[in-house]
Amino acid sequence: MSAKDAYPLLEADLLPLSIGAALLGTGGGGNPYVGMLRSRELLRKGATVDILPLEALPDDAWIGEVGGIGAPVVGVEKIEQGEECYRAMRAVEDVAKVKMSALICAEIGGANSMEPVITAAQAGLPVIDGDGMGRAFPEVQMTTFFIYGAKPAPAAIADDKGNTVVFRDVVDMYWLERFARDTSVAMGAAAGLAIAPMRMDFVRRTAVPNTMTQALQIGRTVLDARARRLDVVDRVIATTGATLFFTGKITDIRRELKGGFARGEAKIAGSGDWQGCEGRIAIQNENLVLWVDGRPVIMVPDLIINLDLETGEPITTEVLRYGQRVAVIGLPVHDLMKTPEAMAVVGPQAFGYPDLTFTPLAFGPVHG
Amino acid sequence: MSAKDAYPLLEADLLPLSIGAALLGTGGGGNPYVGMLRSRELLRKGATVDILPLEALPDDAWIGEVGGIGAPVVGVEKIEQGEECYRAMRAVEDVAKVKMSALICAEIGGANSMEPVITAAQAGLPVIDGDGMGRAFPEVQMTTFFIYGAKPAPAAIADDKGNTVVFRDVVDMYWLERFARDTSVAMGAAAGLAIAPMRMDFVRRTAVPNTMTQALQIGRTVLDARARRLDVVDRVIATTGATLFFTGKITDIRRELKGGFARGEAKIAGSGDWQGCEGRIAIQNENLVLWVDGRPVIMVPDLIINLDLETGEPITTEVLRYGQRVAVIGLPVHDLMKTPEAMAVVGPQAFGYPDLTFTPLAFGPVHG
Repeated sequence: MSAKDAYPLLEADLLPLSIGAALLGTGGGGNPYVGMLRSRELLRKGATVDILPLEALPDDAWIGEVGGIGAPVVGVEKIEQGEECYRAMRAVEDVAKVKMSALICAEIGGANSMEPVITAAQAGLPVIDGDGMGRAFPEVQMTTFFIYGAKPAPAAIADDKGNTVVFRDVVDMYWLERFARDTSVAMGAAAGLAIAPMRMDFVRRTAVPNTMTQALQIGRTVLDARARRLDVVDRVIATTGATLFFTGKITDIRRELKGGFARGEAKIAGSGDWQGCEGRIAIQNENLVLWVDGRPVIMVPDLIINLDLETGEPITTEVLRYGQRVAVIGLPVHDLMKTPEAMAVVGPQAFGYPDLTFTPLAFGPVHG
Repeated sequence: MSAKDAYPLLEADLLPLSIGAALLGTGGGGNPYVGMLRSRELLRKGATVDILPLEALPDDAWIGEVGGIGAPVVGVEKIEQGEECYRAMRAVEDVAKVKMSALICAEIGGANSMEPVITAAQAGLPVIDGDGMGRAFPEVQMTTFFIYGAKPAPAAIADDKGNTVVFRDVVDMYWLERFARDTSVAMGAAAGLAIAPMRMDFVRRTAVPNTMTQALQIGRTVLDARARRLDVVDRVIATTGATLFFTGKITDIRRELKGGFARGEAKIAGSGDWQGCEGRIAIQNENLVLWVDGRPVIMVPDLIINLDLETGEPITTEVLRYGQRVAVIGLPVHDLMKTPEAMAVVGPQAFGYPDLTFTPLAFGPVHG
């Protein structure tokens, strides 16, 4: 598999894809495990899904973006009916009077890495190698697509009971987030969302490229390191070009469900190179900011990833708990997420930190 | 004007229509005053609106039901853009692929008496002489149309900003209420709702008949009594066949905004024939139950109407206050609202009074 060529997604790819996607979820995005099982079921029944490079399709092909919307913590217990995104996508096709040529992930991070694969398997469509975030983010408008002008309507949301709601005329992407969020809550905090069709030339220009392949490669690295009993954290860092920013033990965790989001903060007592330092991570579904001794060292939109120090397993914000020993690694987000337009939507200030100005993590780690 | 013939709605009819509609609002439904002004504006600009008897149109004509949805108390300050219901109705036509031949009120009580008139003036359509409640009720499914099987989808809601949301596939009328309610709250608690087109033969069978004309006649009676300095309460009772059930002074009023509804209770110290008795009225937007000395004497779906004892002005539940002197009159609801099917949706138990079994007010008033 390579980001330059089309390749079929094999059953054997699903586990590494889900592992890589969980890591790129930066603590949020929900667990891709159930979606992985559902994709496997569809592939075993004979469905095929091709991953297409961003160059493959003609400019005027229509691309659909689908994903789950709701509280990740609900998704753990409330299993999807299975065709939520598919029905939402068909409703959008109907209202927009177009046929999709391929699907693309809203976010490669977490459970939404699997939703376009499932929908593609159901609809007989390929999936584009890329996504709208290069990570996970909590809100609908936080994609490169919307940041660079994707139309907010018509979009559609569907639930497990057979309800479908179409957002037919929507003033802007923030209103879409608001309507979709409230409707997803009415639907039981787990639903499938499809946004308005996008032209391939627009997607080519605005998608974070090759992220299906990137997730797959990360997952393969993790599985390979485990099989060969290598240090998973080391191997992930070596493969991804990530930087280790902190190691330590969780000493305090505050977390509450507020407005459909898990918000909170974790404190970490440093170990190893960071012995005697205090780390602190702000959370809104995803990890938002890492401070070391009060100094912000990684912040959104760059990726802050907590890995279990022993197993290398990514730790989602729902399962963070007292006593866990973690390695905090940072990965620079794609350049499309660092422009002034992007900062207005996914920068630290957009997340409620008026005093933080985005500093790319290329500046490197702070040691005690 | 007569319920048996079509007649044009004249500018001079709007004030009496709004007065009668406010009275039939049984304390809720919102104030029709702003809608009355807006209708007048449209008629003055040359629009014409005919009121058609239920017999006028062929069986296969499509009828649209439109109305405002939201908190009446918000409608007082947040003035509509003016085309909310119109845009919702057009969205339903689009999705359902039909053209409406006429419009009908969801509820004749309160502000929603005016919404189909406004939309009809904008769309060049007539309005059917009838409605889905014969009064006001707080929820979308509480119409004779839904009670007798109207389809819950496609319906649509539109706001003052240009947002339109289509409820395309909806499991049942309770889900429609839920989605429409939550979306109306996201829209700022004031929006226009249009439900799925209904065939004329269905509307003929299920509408509460002649209620536009009834509201007009009540309003004309009130205006006539005022002009001739007659006792308005007496004249209303004589014209409508209502019964006086209580007179007294408000001694206590509890009211809270909860889940988008004004809920509460008013206590009334009896006067005149009820000297020494205590009246008590339960409220959920509308007046739900009147107890006299602990005994329920009028209950939903029958109409409980508070009139100012001096002016005969209907008192809405938002403006009920300590010290007001009121006459409580009761009007029997239409028979379509008294069947077992109707009781399940609008009976006292549906409103959270498991111990009350509906007793029609034909049994007459209780004196102390």
